[in-house]
Amino acid sequence: MNTTNLISSAQSLINSESPSMAQDFAWLRRGVVEIFPQPTDVDSESETLEKRLATTSRPLRVKLGIDPTGADIHLGHSIPVRKLRAFQDAGHTAVLIIGDFTARIGDPTGKSEVRRQLTEAEVAQNAQTYLDQVRPILDFDTPGRLEVRYNSEWLSRLDLGKILELLSTMTVGQMLAKEGFAERYKKENPIFLHEFLYPLMQGYDSVAVEADVELGGTDQKFNIAVGRDLQRHFGQKPQFGLLLPILIGTDGVQKMSKSLGNYVGLSEHPSDKYQKLQGVPDQLLTQYFELLTDLALEKLPANPRDRQLLLAWEVVKQYHGEAAANQAKEAADSGGKKGAIPEFSLAEIPQFPVKLAYLLNVSGLCKSSGEGKRKIQEGGVYLDGDRITNVDTTFAQPDELAQKVLQVGKNKFVRLVP
Amino acid sequence: MNTTNLISSAQSLINSESPSMAQDFAWLRRGVVEIFPQPTDVDSESETLEKRLATTSRPLRVKLGIDPTGADIHLGHSIPVRKLRAFQDAGHTAVLIIGDFTARIGDPTGKSEVRRQLTEAEVAQNAQTYLDQVRPILDFDTPGRLEVRYNSEWLSRLDLGKILELLSTMTVGQMLAKEGFAERYKKENPIFLHEFLYPLMQGYDSVAVEADVELGGTDQKFNIAVGRDLQRHFGQKPQFGLLLPILIGTDGVQKMSKSLGNYVGLSEHPSDKYQKLQGVPDQLLTQYFELLTDLALEKLPANPRDRQLLLAWEVVKQYHGEAAANQAKEAADSGGKKGAIPEFSLAEIPQFPVKLAYLLNVSGLCKSSGEGKRKIQEGGVYLDGDRITNVDTTFAQPDELAQKVLQVGKNKFVRLVP
Repeated sequence: MNTTNLISSAQSLINSESPSMAQDFAWLRRGVVEIFPQPTDVDSESETLEKRLATTSRPLRVKLGIDPTGADIHLGHSIPVRKLRAFQDAGHTAVLIIGDFTARIGDPTGKSEVRRQLTEAEVAQNAQTYLDQVRPILDFDTPGRLEVRYNSEWLSRLDLGKILELLSTMTVGQMLAKEGFAERYKKENPIFLHEFLYPLMQGYDSVAVEADVELGGTDQKFNIAVGRDLQRHFGQKPQFGLLLPILIGTDGVQKMSKSLGNYVGLSEHPSDKYQKLQGVPDQLLTQYFELLTDLALEKLPANPRDRQLLLAWEVVKQYHGEAAANQAKEAADSGGKKGAIPEFSLAEIPQFPVKLAYLLNVSGLCKSSGEGKRKIQEGGVYLDGDRITNVDTTFAQPDELAQKVLQVGKNKFVRLVP
Repeated sequence: MNTTNLISSAQSLINSESPSMAQDFAWLRRGVVEIFPQPTDVDSESETLEKRLATTSRPLRVKLGIDPTGADIHLGHSIPVRKLRAFQDAGHTAVLIIGDFTARIGDPTGKSEVRRQLTEAEVAQNAQTYLDQVRPILDFDTPGRLEVRYNSEWLSRLDLGKILELLSTMTVGQMLAKEGFAERYKKENPIFLHEFLYPLMQGYDSVAVEADVELGGTDQKFNIAVGRDLQRHFGQKPQFGLLLPILIGTDGVQKMSKSLGNYVGLSEHPSDKYQKLQGVPDQLLTQYFELLTDLALEKLPANPRDRQLLLAWEVVKQYHGEAAANQAKEAADSGGKKGAIPEFSLAEIPQFPVKLAYLLNVSGLCKSSGEGKRKIQEGGVYLDGDRITNVDTTFAQPDELAQKVLQVGKNKFVRLVP
């Protein structure tokens, strides 16, 4: 498909359900795994989200909590943010909660590297970076459509009496039934008592902002349900939970994660985004279209390669505009020359077969074959986005490697050319 | 035994270990079930309390926490207070902690009648009543020997960050190992999460007052150990725990408890105290002497009846002085007529049924039925030691009341006679 074809293909797929029809419940439900409560749930309220949306006389407050402990976010993180945008387009208020309180506290045991204590400046910077990255997704401009809140606003004011009250709404048995805790308790892995407070803190965020709906990945069901319980406890109408899938990464196997290297970061260069997305395995394409684009799913191109290219182009367009998407496509088409990636000529290798560790050294990505081996063992080496973990990987001839991108860690790449 | 014999018997038993020798460790250890840590405990400190007492260059801070949810205390409660006095006599500082914070909060689930929420005024009044009752036991006068602290001073200032830190010092498994929790968890009886905070709050009291020793009943071992852990966490030297027995009541079977009716209250009339104590079963006498008096145990009278009388006389003397003890004995001896209590003849009441509030008025205990009602509501009215809180309490006929002692507050009594 050439660029013109791509553009017209994308235009023809502008979803008949999409933003102009955004008040349609089917549109809000696209890609959603579960909405709760359902009318079939044993629950005192028989109202469904659909009915609530149809009858509400004011914009609903749709909450999404984000964790400002890291700066970079990827397409997996973008899924609930895109859903938040759908609610904004339907006239509702997105309430984006920056979990600055928890980030400022860190992990009080000091044992968790993930939860190291951040300074106020670090948190502020991470929050700003986050907002910059989601700016292309959310409606920041229409008045009343976006509220950004920092949860230290209310959590730092909780006193012991209030915290006892929060804790008293749940039993040990209920908390230990939470996914994660249950297995750890069974295996006798220590669960520290303060960990029981985190779901209650997240739940109390819903009370503080008076959320009507909370969005989250499927792993957030417990926490969102805690929010419902606390809202009920404090005399509010409990929020609806809307659960979205956890995105599988570009490797087609594991969930998208920066540490696994199978991710597409929102801050990546358009060409890098394009390059990664045009390689998404066929079996993931429909879900990627469903979750990451607004295009109609019924009329996607028949040819799998065309679907890959359309996905790559469409996603790049969302974040960088049509010109950048076209440019990324053209760069990819013109013999794989990808703007910024340096090349290494396979002709420089004296003889094949060649070991991967040696290749890492002579290509300049590692300082020695030994370092190359270590990087492979650490899981930091990728060939065209596929991680290679076998230190003895060997290539018999140059054409197994030609035009592929060899990568170490996040920032070191070479394109292998003949 | 006549009164003169009683007095001389008691004098002959003034303990050769007693207050004059108070710095002797054997004296401080009298009646104690356990002191921890012992040098045999696996613990980084090998110091024992005995060594600490022998080498300290400053008075130790000896903590006892008390719960101001009820006003009346009994001889069972007096045991750690008496031990506190022994430490005072040895030159140390008694730190009496009034648990006003917890009493002000009440039970956040609202399910516990025992932990109903008290007003500031109720807490203050209960605390004052407590102090009035322990006044005969403790040294209130020697400078530096008594510190009375209210734990709301520090607990009301804890924020969520600090509370997360407190919680992070323990695991769910450690907390569930606590006596009480373990059985409830096994039986699948609900344990509410806030219950996990109470041991930590008590432990934090030790941090706040920098306790060197904490006294408590044997049921307090877990909580005192939590205090040690928290002190270590906050860089303090951990306190020693000194555990005292839970007193068996005058029925000789169950632990002394107001609700079981097997108690001797510190605010009871001398004659009532005497009457109850002279009936303490023989098998309890040695422990009662050990825990409730300073008398030497080796030379107690051979005759069990003499031991009972000596116990009764000695305890009454402690709280009311020798004259009151003699009077109580004489009253008991003269056919059960209970000395100092004025009588009110039920024949003066024109007709039955009669309301309690009215009875309080006509008997002269209150100036009006209205004051009677208020006293009932305030919890200050007792019939034979049982508090009556229902203002509408009515008695159908005189024989429901005959020979009973009607009491208002601490000092006003009448015996109701036919």
